[in-house]
This record gives sequence, structure tokens and C-alpha cells, in this order.
Amino acid sequence: MNVFVIGTGLIGGSLALDIQEAFKDAVIFGIDKDEEALEHAKELNIIHKKASLSDLSIADIVIISIPVDISIAIISEVLDIVTDSCLVLDVGSTKEKICNAIENHPKRRNFLATHPIAGTEFSGPKAALKNLYKGKTNIICEVEKTAFKLQEKALEIFSKLGMRIRYMDAKSHDKHIAYVSHLSHISSFMLGKTVIEKEKNERDIFDMAGSGFTSTVRLAKSSPDMWTPIFKQNKENVIETLDEYIQNLLQFKKLMEEDNFSEIYTEMENTNYIKQILNGIKEVKLQ
Amino acid sequence: MNVFVIGTGLIGGSLALDIQEAFKDAVIFGIDKDEEALEHAKELNIIHKKASLSDLSIADIVIISIPVDISIAIISEVLDIVTDSCLVLDVGSTKEKICNAIENHPKRRNFLATHPIAGTEFSGPKAALKNLYKGKTNIICEVEKTAFKLQEKALEIFSKLGMRIRYMDAKSHDKHIAYVSHLSHISSFMLGKTVIEKEKNERDIFDMAGSGFTSTVRLAKSSPDMWTPIFKQNKENVIETLDEYIQNLLQFKKLMEEDNFSEIYTEMENTNYIKQILNGIKEVKLQ
Repeated sequence: MNVFVIGTGLIGGSLALDIQEAFKDAVIFGIDKDEEALEHAKELNIIHKKASLSDLSIADIVIISIPVDISIAIISEVLDIVTDSCLVLDVGSTKEKICNAIENHPKRRNFLATHPIAGTEFSGPKAALKNLYKGKTNIICEVEKTAFKLQEKALEIFSKLGMRIRYMDAKSHDKHIAYVSHLSHISSFMLGKTVIEKEKNERDIFDMAGSGFTSTVRLAKSSPDMWTPIFKQNKENVIETLDEYIQNLLQFKKLMEEDNFSEIYTEMENTNYIKQILNGIKEVKLQ
Repeated sequence: MNVFVIGTGLIGGSLALDIQEAFKDAVIFGIDKDEEALEHAKELNIIHKKASLSDLSIADIVIISIPVDISIAIISEVLDIVTDSCLVLDVGSTKEKICNAIENHPKRRNFLATHPIAGTEFSGPKAALKNLYKGKTNIICEVEKTAFKLQEKALEIFSKLGMRIRYMDAKSHDKHIAYVSHLSHISSFMLGKTVIEKEKNERDIFDMAGSGFTSTVRLAKSSPDMWTPIFKQNKENVIETLDEYIQNLLQFKKLMEEDNFSEIYTEMENTNYIKQILNGIKEVKLQ
């Protein structure tokens, strides 16, 4: 089984590691425009061989795990090269634009749009981890547009990697993911920015920071190469979430200015409901 | 050594557990207006005996670990009862108002204002943890106003619990902690609120949430009983940080609306500097 991974960083590299483990006959080919990253991926045994797009004609599976703007640019090219029995997956964080981009491609049925909800704030092949996907959710969009046999092939891989599957239309995916992922990244980046701006001349202030700050600001370490195109592709949904978030912050500020601390108490108490939701997530994933 | 812990929850309870371990002669007395919590603290061996304020005359050390508004209300009363050789500590998250409140108390020299930067999003005696304070920073304010022998007593305890000490005036403490702690809590609460409001009728959307959301929203599980009085006591500083945070979010939104994604890239790249800062925190704490 010839598996090509285009983009051998955190997401693609972690998939490559688990696929090697689950499918002993898999030969992993890596493609990356960053020659140094590709070399690292080879050294770390994430891939067996370095390759280029022209080699894709021998692929059984192609995984596209690169920033979402570059995905859109090369996916048609990939579909043009692969054989009729090859499965082409993308694993990006936005789904509507990519689905639209290849809607009318003659090989649309070779393509499956997926979004494994997994990752860390780090990037590159050195950030790749074994078992990153175990117990995680993988969202598959427009499954009906993919050839049935290739759906089966994909599900076999996801199942062996321990993922839960959810089906969703691309538009709903992008809307909801703006709330539960993209907004978190912006809130974290802007928190980091606010604190750095204020405290840049007082470096030693930062050891006043505890685990709470570390946790809320963690996503501000994320890669701008990955996140800029995500915000761009999901612009309208992200602006909507950002608007609502800003409105809630303004209202909180107003309550403080008015010394309405009983309402602030109520707001926080109501939001504590997030405990049940997060416990719900854990339970669902343990099933 | 008779140690009285007023408030036997996460912070006081964890201190009690470590003090028992480090000082074999310590007898831990618990005081809590919540009779059920006090009973739990006893069952969990966090305290040896239940007590009340009138017993404080036999105290060698009193630790006040209750919401900061209640601290201010009872600290004078505590100082009135204790002997001249007793050390009274508070461990609250705001320092200026409490220091001002007892500035002219005849037993001011028995009091030490501290803020151990440690905790979790949970509360109550069941949330108490051994070794919570190991390697953490403890900020001591207005140390010069505390009797030297009692400073020594406090430092011996903090040192045995593995804490790093930093000295700071109360005003600076409150200003900086607004950035590195209080703002994180508001950003997290409002993130939780925004997502719950939007998605409350779509419970199963939440299993689209990954570790990023879990991390940024974690502090929204925090106790309103603890946090409402903190925001109230640190109102001006908190409003200032909140203002700057909202301005940064508005500017980010504007950049998105103008399709200025190169500037968004730069903003995120600059904020990635938080990596070095967080690594710095880790290194300092390992020393």
C-alpha cells in the first residue's frame, strides 16, 4: 500500500506514524516543499521515502496535510495525476471552500474531505506524535460524493487509528468549528498580545503567571502559516463569533463599571455549565 | 504548633496537607462557615480538629484562605483574638485592599500578605492536593510591615513547601496580576459564554471541540464565589486590562473585515513570542 503524505508536519507526520504501525505493508512517501522538514521526517522514520507530485501515479492513498490555502491550490493537480482507485484525503480545518473548489472535478469521487480534531500548538515533523488520533473525533464532509469503496478504505484507516467518525455538511462544519476552535485561537492570541504589550519591559512579571495563564494562552504559540489561511477561508463565520465574543466582553466590562457584581456572579455561575459540557465530551469519547 | 486554617477548600486545604507533612508536630484546626465542607476536610484528614474563631487564642499560625471580600471582613477580628507571637497569613488573589484595611491595626506586625500562585479550576476540600505549591511562586507584599520573627516563621513554611518567594508592593501586585491572571479568567468565562449561547441547542456540536477549546475554556469552570470579589476588589486594574483586550480583538476583527491577512499573520507571528516567555517561566521555576 503506497501512502503519500503531502505535508509531513504535526498532522500529516502523526498520521504517517500511526498508519505505519497499523498497516505493516504500508510504504510511506513524503512530499514537502520544505526540503529540511522532509529530511527531518525521513530521519525520524515518519516517512520511508522522499517523493514529489509526479510520483503520485503509484499512490493508493494521498493525504493532504498542508495549510488550507495551499491545499486548495494543489488538490486539483493531485486528482489529475492519481489513478481511479486512489483515495485522496484532506485533513484541513476548513471544509466549505475546498469542497467547492473540486466540486466539478472529474475525479471528485476519489476525494474525501475530513477534519480530524486533533493537534497541539506545535508544528513540523518534530511535533508529530504516535497515537495522536486515538479517541479523537474525525469529521467527514459530503461523504456521499466519495466513491463507496474509497469511503470504506478511509474508514478502515480511521478505525484502526482509533477515531470516532461524525458526518456533517461542509457549511455546518465551518460554522460550528468557528465557535469551538477558531475563536479559541483568536481569544488566546489576543490575550497573549495584550499581556506582552503591557508587560514587555517587565520580563520578570511573567513568573507571576500560573497554570491558568499558561492554559488560556497556550494556543497563541500556534503557527501563523497554518492559521492565517484558516481565518481567511472561514472569514464570515469567524467574524460572527468574534463579534459575539466582543459583545459579551463589553457587557462584562459594563457590569463592572456599574458595580453590578451580582450579575457578574450570575454570568459566571451560568457559564460554569461548561463543566457538564466538557465532561460530556470526555464521556462521549470514552464510549 | 497549632495551625488554624480558615477556609478549608482548595487553597487552604492544600496548604494544610503540606504543612502536616513538613511539620510533624503541627496540629491543624479547621474553621469554615460551611459545616459540610468542614466535615469533608476532617474526613479527608486535611484537618485534625474542627474549631471556631474563639479558639484562635491558642493559634501559632492562622491561614486565611477564603474569598477576598470575607477576608477583609474578618481579618481585624482574627488579629484582635490572636496572641502577640501568632503569625496571621492571608493567601488571597488581591492584595491592596486587604493591606489597606489592616494598615492601622495594633497587631499589623502579626500579619503577612501573601499570594501563592497556585490552584486549579476546582474548589472545596475535595479539590485539595498534596504538593500543589512545590516549585510555585509566592508573592509577599509589604514584608517590612511584618515582625521579623514572624517573617522568618512564614519563610520556613514556604521553603519547606518548595515555594519561590518574590517581594512586591501591593499596588504593583494587583496591577500585574490583573494581566497575567484576572484577564485570563474573564477571557475564558466569556469564551465559554459565547459558545454556550450559540450552541446550547446543539449539544452534540461540542464533541467537535478539541484540546484547544478545552484548554482555553478551562478557567470558566472556576468558582464565582471566589472570583466575583476578586474582580470587585481589583476593579480598576481589571477594567484597564479588559479595555486593552477588547481593543486588540476589535482591531483583529477590523483586519479581517479589510482582508488584511498579511497583518494578521504578523500579529500572530509577533505573539508567538509568548513561547519564549512561557519557557522562561518554566526555566525560572526549575532553578
